[in-house]
Amino acid sequence: MIVVMSKDSTEENLEEVRRRIEANSGLKAQVFHGVERIVVGVLGTVPPDLKEQMELLLGVSEVVPISKPYKLASREFHPDNSKVVVGSVVIGGPEPVIMAGPCSVEDEEQMISTARAVKAAGATVLRGGAFKPRTSPYSFRGMGLDGLKLLKMAKEETGLPIITEVMAPGDVDTVAQYADILQVGTRNMQNYSLLDEVGDSGKPVMIKRGMAAPYEEWLLAAEYVLARGNDQVMLCERGIRGFEQFTRFTLDVAAIPVIKRLSHLPILADPSHSTGKWYLVTPVALAAIAAGAHGLLVEVHPNPDLALCDGPQSLTFENFGNMMNQVRAVASVRQDAPVAR
Amino acid sequence: MIVVMSKDSTEENLEEVRRRIEANSGLKAQVFHGVERIVVGVLGTVPPDLKEQMELLLGVSEVVPISKPYKLASREFHPDNSKVVVGSVVIGGPEPVIMAGPCSVEDEEQMISTARAVKAAGATVLRGGAFKPRTSPYSFRGMGLDGLKLLKMAKEETGLPIITEVMAPGDVDTVAQYADILQVGTRNMQNYSLLDEVGDSGKPVMIKRGMAAPYEEWLLAAEYVLARGNDQVMLCERGIRGFEQFTRFTLDVAAIPVIKRLSHLPILADPSHSTGKWYLVTPVALAAIAAGAHGLLVEVHPNPDLALCDGPQSLTFENFGNMMNQVRAVASVRQDAPVAR
Amino acid sequence: MIVVMSKDSTEENLEEVRRRIEANSGLKAQVFHGVERIVVGVLGTVPPDLKEQMELLLGVSEVVPISKPYKLASREFHPDNSKVVVGSVVIGGPEPVIMAGPCSVEDEEQMISTARAVKAAGATVLRGGAFKPRTSPYSFRGMGLDGLKLLKMAKEETGLPIITEVMAPGDVDTVAQYADILQVGTRNMQNYSLLDEVGDSGKPVMIKRGMAAPYEEWLLAAEYVLARGNDQVMLCERGIRGFEQFTRFTLDVAAIPVIKRLSHLPILADPSHSTGKWYLVTPVALAAIAAGAHGLLVEVHPNPDLALCDGPQSLTFENFGNMMNQVRAVASVRQDAPVAR
Amino acid sequence: MIVVMSKDSTEENLEEVRRRIEANSGLKAQVFHGVERIVVGVLGTVPPDLKEQMELLLGVSEVVPISKPYKLASREFHPDNSKVVVGSVVIGGPEPVIMAGPCSVEDEEQMISTARAVKAAGATVLRGGAFKPRTSPYSFRGMGLDGLKLLKMAKEETGLPIITEVMAPGDVDTVAQYADILQVGTRNMQNYSLLDEVGDSGKPVMIKRGMAAPYEEWLLAAEYVLARGNDQVMLCERGIRGFEQFTRFTLDVAAIPVIKRLSHLPILADPSHSTGKWYLVTPVALAAIAAGAHGLLVEVHPNPDLALCDGPQSLTFENFGNMMNQVRAVASVRQDAPVAR
Repeated sequence: MIVVMSKDSTEENLEEVRRRIEANSGLKAQVFHGVERIVVGVLGTVPPDLKEQMELLLGVSEVVPISKPYKLASREFHPDNSKVVVGSVVIGGPEPVIMAGPCSVEDEEQMISTARAVKAAGATVLRGGAFKPRTSPYSFRGMGLDGLKLLKMAKEETGLPIITEVMAPGDVDTVAQYADILQVGTRNMQNYSLLDEVGDSGKPVMIKRGMAAPYEEWLLAAEYVLARGNDQVMLCERGIRGFEQFTRFTLDVAAIPVIKRLSHLPILADPSHSTGKWYLVTPVALAAIAAGAHGLLVEVHPNPDLALCDGPQSLTFENFGNMMNQVRAVASVRQDAPVAR
Repeated sequence: MIVVMSKDSTEENLEEVRRRIEANSGLKAQVFHGVERIVVGVLGTVPPDLKEQMELLLGVSEVVPISKPYKLASREFHPDNSKVVVGSVVIGGPEPVIMAGPCSVEDEEQMISTARAVKAAGATVLRGGAFKPRTSPYSFRGMGLDGLKLLKMAKEETGLPIITEVMAPGDVDTVAQYADILQVGTRNMQNYSLLDEVGDSGKPVMIKRGMAAPYEEWLLAAEYVLARGNDQVMLCERGIRGFEQFTRFTLDVAAIPVIKRLSHLPILADPSHSTGKWYLVTPVALAAIAAGAHGLLVEVHPNPDLALCDGPQSLTFENFGNMMNQVRAVASVRQDAPVAR
Repeated sequence: MIVVMSKDSTEENLEEVRRRIEANSGLKAQVFHGVERIVVGVLGTVPPDLKEQMELLLGVSEVVPISKPYKLASREFHPDNSKVVVGSVVIGGPEPVIMAGPCSVEDEEQMISTARAVKAAGATVLRGGAFKPRTSPYSFRGMGLDGLKLLKMAKEETGLPIITEVMAPGDVDTVAQYADILQVGTRNMQNYSLLDEVGDSGKPVMIKRGMAAPYEEWLLAAEYVLARGNDQVMLCERGIRGFEQFTRFTLDVAAIPVIKRLSHLPILADPSHSTGKWYLVTPVALAAIAAGAHGLLVEVHPNPDLALCDGPQSLTFENFGNMMNQVRAVASVRQDAPVAR
Repeated sequence: MIVVMSKDSTEENLEEVRRRIEANSGLKAQVFHGVERIVVGVLGTVPPDLKEQMELLLGVSEVVPISKPYKLASREFHPDNSKVVVGSVVIGGPEPVIMAGPCSVEDEEQMISTARAVKAAGATVLRGGAFKPRTSPYSFRGMGLDGLKLLKMAKEETGLPIITEVMAPGDVDTVAQYADILQVGTRNMQNYSLLDEVGDSGKPVMIKRGMAAPYEEWLLAAEYVLARGNDQVMLCERGIRGFEQFTRFTLDVAAIPVIKRLSHLPILADPSHSTGKWYLVTPVALAAIAAGAHGLLVEVHPNPDLALCDGPQSLTFENFGNMMNQVRAVASVRQDAPVAR
């Protein structure tokens, strides 16, 4: 249920609404200050008479039940698109935001050269893995703290903000000191203690879709973060597990318009992990942009053949430049999806 | 294995190659006349010494083993893109071909008005179902022959060639008298007697991807048709079965660049059946075009709420017009995928 | 909707019920003579007042709406288990029926020796493919009519009735002359012209689950056959397509109790095609029996290494004998599932 | 690669083998003391000449490369079945071990009565969730520490050892003080920091299959725990995500014989979470036992209609008793799978 305050409502009205909600054991009020109006989300199982109670309070304009299991993540709760702002980068607006860089941070030379190359081509966020989720315990699991330091160095050199994955609740504080955006990977989409922790961090968070997650479970993962009071959340479609094994995963391109309809959160796509093959990255990236994605997460490496991780799906600097030219061309002609029949 | 004839080879050279191949029991020679060269496909299990034998024949320029289980459908067999030509419509060239119309033919007024509307908006092929595959025996199964006649009427009125589904081997002759393109539906992708029959019909054939078919099995379905000597074959990605149930199927957008890499056959996409929801059709259609699709198959109905079949996924004339404007815009900026790293 | 006749109802009462139903355009009456009562299924979209009309007729005991999209296949329509009877073999009773034999008929020696061996081990139906659905057009597609003749020879030799696949509507008459049970394969589960034809044949029919078919679509495939007036229908779980590629398909063992709850039709399982590996056949067969399957379809070959088709998943005579001993042991201790909490 | 020591090898021989392995940077030696022989696993990327080096050392009987990406979990590394011993309970032997109890711990009365009932019916391990992974942040997330205390109370009352889920690395120490077996849930199968932590705990660990995990990734999750020196690991098939939505998940019964072939680790099954419906639990449980499972994890509740979690799939005491009778009957007749053709 959400309580919409009237335009002329006062701070006291708002305080009373919150007080009345939280007087019910198990309920929590989450206040959202929108551009045009203030909205209060009621979290928890709503007692039958609360709606009427709320409607009678001063300063309340409207009380709307939310039928979806996710509340704060729903379009009903927040009819306009949310924007996540990282320095001068706005995710969720008309311009697609391209986040690019190597799968894993390997050394200074690799990071700096890649950061410069992706910036020159038009990327505005730098990605790079310091803590790597690896299927085998014997694979390279990332440089850890040293990797974070190299990311910071690349940021200082180029001005690009950093997105990097955090895998354990205990690492959130450390990673948050270096990263501008915390990434929750597909394997951790339902790692609830991690979601709680990144929720508390106050940092922007990108939640990749679990490889077996229906839309509703994905939005509920976002709800975990939102329910901790962190509204800087974005989603990333990165391919789901299916029977087709020629590609690593199946990028579900319809997820982009679906999420835009169900939710106000920005939605990006990762054409690298979903396809697993460099020559499929550009066409799938363009598909995502054409379908309305707010951005892309793309793996780029100075020398993919020597990459410690995910070489086959990494773009060279040149191919990334070509991709960017086409992304710009498609983005320049796209329009918003129709909202009514 | 394929035998590439040299440019100055004679008819007799070709005949001898064919004779020698078919002297092996179980082998068949399939001759393909390309723009620049003549190629002979060797179908069946190739004996170890055949390659050397062939290389010694007059007029043979090169003998190339094909590693894939599909031969005639493979890019190795036919390095250039194939084009399927239906009157003035070319499928497989740079211009995307839009095939549009109602799920099922219902009456004259519906067919004529829809044909005019989709033509006006830029569609160049008319779709409409006369024989409908229906999950329940109690659903409307199409108008049959009467539906074919209405399709023909709409063709005469607008000049648009017709694509329609054929479901039974025994119906192929009848449908082929009315249709310009025979469609094999997802449920029949491995209906081998039907594939044989449409192969023998000599008509252009569109093979929709089976809802549980990996790329290889889909290309092998095309191989059935090609192996009957019918090279007018195109493919259509229409969504695969997965765990996500918000959409009817999951459109696998990566299928488009994958098929273009593995095969020379034109590849289209069906955003209507895959999503099952009209408001997802345009973004998914644009995604397919941006990813390089040679065309689209889209359901359009004068009044979707009254449609006998698939109303929720049908576009109104107005929404189809909007989609076409955006399709043209995206198509105008797209480029071919890079072919080398 | 179903109309249950009272015990003392007359032929005339029944005729009047049928007449009144079919007086509605689009409706069909299907009469089912059960052991204890006569039931009339109303097929088609039922008008709102028909229920009341029927209840007022003489000889009608009860009128029950059926909520499922499948009617004749539903447990509501026919509360007792159906039995399919083939000579002395009863499918759907307490004893599991084992159908065994080679993937494809190859020659007389192979068929006769296999038929004798599987009979000696306890199989009561002989399987063998004469028309083979093959993913590649270049694979062995079966011996056709010659294969059917060899099957008949093996039947005459051993007395075992025959189950074999039919793939094309035009082949149904021919196959029905040789086979005791017509098998509809997974690739043809939604080949509706084939379903119509086997429905009309009057022969017992086994419908394998489509590899991407939810339970409801599978039961609707059975409904196609039942709606033609053929009530000798059984189902076979043979594995569904999923992401796990170590096995060919994923046998969905829960399908067995689910089908028994939703439907009255006998349900068997095929441990050979689902696993694709001989060493998994016995444990999966035992699982199916323990879960309540009415029978099994198992591939057995005198020399699996030389089989023209599906060798890796075929059991030797010895392994089949071992499997049968264990199947008997598990079957002897199993009970029916509880029907109420 | 594994190094098998000869029967008369000394401690010094073993020490030298270990020293030589670890002299290579990136390699680790893991010693396993089997009943008949001592085996040393070489973890990491093995240099080409190491095999020969090892074969020349004193006390080495054989050096065997392991082709699988998982090493310590592979049947090659440990040809006999592993057994996990918890007090008097042996998991991995001929007797199936039944672990039963409520989805979540709710109160003392519920835990004690359930513990007594499942013990009386033949269960030998008590399950119960104190930390619950919930798709929605607004669902009951378990009693936490208070739940652990109630589990301990029930253990003291009945003598049944406890299995309970641990979700966060930071909770492992606490949970390990109360639990006899730590359960890693399906959503955390690739939560690598959690796997490391339960590996270090020294406690027996049960790893549920990730809902989108192929066998290989599941065994690699076990490898994470084994590689920390904890060899008390067992696996649990609990259903995978597929297109069928009538059941919550699809229990892959073939996983049981597959895991027994690829690995030496005990394999159990969870018929409750996979089916999501109480009336499917018994047949699926019997299927798992017939297929060779070493045990079951079953949800039982004194009053399923009032359960705070997973009521629809919980068995009553009476139905659990019936299930146990049938489990015993099937277990009494099953044999081991054949190991050779």
